[in-house]
Amino acid sequence: MSLFYQPEVSNGVLFLDEEESRHCIKVLRYKTGDTIQVQDGRGNIFSVRLTSAHQKKCEFEVIDTEFQQPPPYYIHVGIAPTKNLDRIEWFVEKTVEIGVQEISFISCKNSERKVLKLDRLERKALSAMKQSQHRYMPKLNELRSFNELTTKITETDKYIAHVDFDNPVGLARSAKAGGKYCVLIGPEGDFTSEEVEYALQNGFKKVSLGSSRLRTETAGIVACHTLNLINDA
Amino acid sequence: MSLFYQPEVSNGVLFLDEEESRHCIKVLRYKTGDTIQVQDGRGNIFSVRLTSAHQKKCEFEVIDTEFQQPPPYYIHVGIAPTKNLDRIEWFVEKTVEIGVQEISFISCKNSERKVLKLDRLERKALSAMKQSQHRYMPKLNELRSFNELTTKITETDKYIAHVDFDNPVGLARSAKAGGKYCVLIGPEGDFTSEEVEYALQNGFKKVSLGSSRLRTETAGIVACHTLNLINDA
Repeated sequence: MSLFYQPEVSNGVLFLDEEESRHCIKVLRYKTGDTIQVQDGRGNIFSVRLTSAHQKKCEFEVIDTEFQQPPPYYIHVGIAPTKNLDRIEWFVEKTVEIGVQEISFISCKNSERKVLKLDRLERKALSAMKQSQHRYMPKLNELRSFNELTTKITETDKYIAHVDFDNPVGLARSAKAGGKYCVLIGPEGDFTSEEVEYALQNGFKKVSLGSSRLRTETAGIVACHTLNLINDA
Repeated sequence: MSLFYQPEVSNGVLFLDEEESRHCIKVLRYKTGDTIQVQDGRGNIFSVRLTSAHQKKCEFEVIDTEFQQPPPYYIHVGIAPTKNLDRIEWFVEKTVEIGVQEISFISCKNSERKVLKLDRLERKALSAMKQSQHRYMPKLNELRSFNELTTKITETDKYIAHVDFDNPVGLARSAKAGGKYCVLIGPEGDFTSEEVEYALQNGFKKVSLGSSRLRTETAGIVACHTLNLINDA
């Protein structure tokens, strides 16, 4: 059964937006009186009955609600977006499938991309959430400076990934299950030594993601998967 | 420094092919007498001196050879190619970056793709090997039937991944370091119960790749990364 999306059901918004309405009524041909399922990306799945099967604004009433607790860990990946947009989109799709709670885009000294629009990425994330049957929509944050992100995050288990650290500890060894993680992934030209130093001063630990030299988006996926694996015992 | 590719140096082939020659001579402007590095994807990096800087067939002589042993484990991923070619190409690029020794494409009952050309995928693999500075070029096998692959592989640690197994054991728990692994990843419509049964009869173990519902190419990358992580201690 299809799962539709309306993030504000709990706040009394009892209709689908235009795109979801069209899909529900025009493509899947649901009619007034039919029951569908709506998720809010905040842990709830609502069984709802259509009260107005309008293809631009499909209205419903809630019959039943099922809530799922969020996972007992929190994965936040901070990543310098690549020049090629496809690679960022692919990163978002894959980390959402695998499981991520928050993604921040960082503007670094060596960043190849200083501007980033979130709307396409939000759509990718939504589609991946539905596809992978996750209940929680990850939070995507606008591009911020490295220093701003590094000082403002609230997670307690903070890591900065880098290929060329001396004697690095692997993320899989350093992180413990049940953590509130934030992992920073640098641009193709890597973090500068000043950026690394600044992160260390702000409580980040240096970690390695293994012996392979990974592209930015691959490093982000590998970090996200490693943290999921630690918790998926 | 750029790393060029010629798989047959050890068999006496002392020139670059047309594409690599053009890149070496026309783009990077190397000249006769210059020293470059050539890898063969079989563990060797050769320091070579150009003897004829021709842009279609650049000849050289070997000055020095450096050999790196292959890793003490072997990862073979058998995967049903997706309908969308981009997704298979991504899978190849990412697994080569992360580390894979062999990829087989499987034609399953529910496969959406019954024909697959390897040349584009070979180029993706080559480019990813260079990018990630790996010394070994993975072997890519032509599309074969599920039954043929399942009965003919020689790896000893054989796994079949499936989302809906009852009480599945995670691949990370089941596999031990230093193994010769083969993991099978099914199509979007999954393996049929007959295929699963056939694999079990041929010594495969059922494993899970975690609680998320992953697309085929994501499952392949996750399996490959899990096996690398077990070995990258």
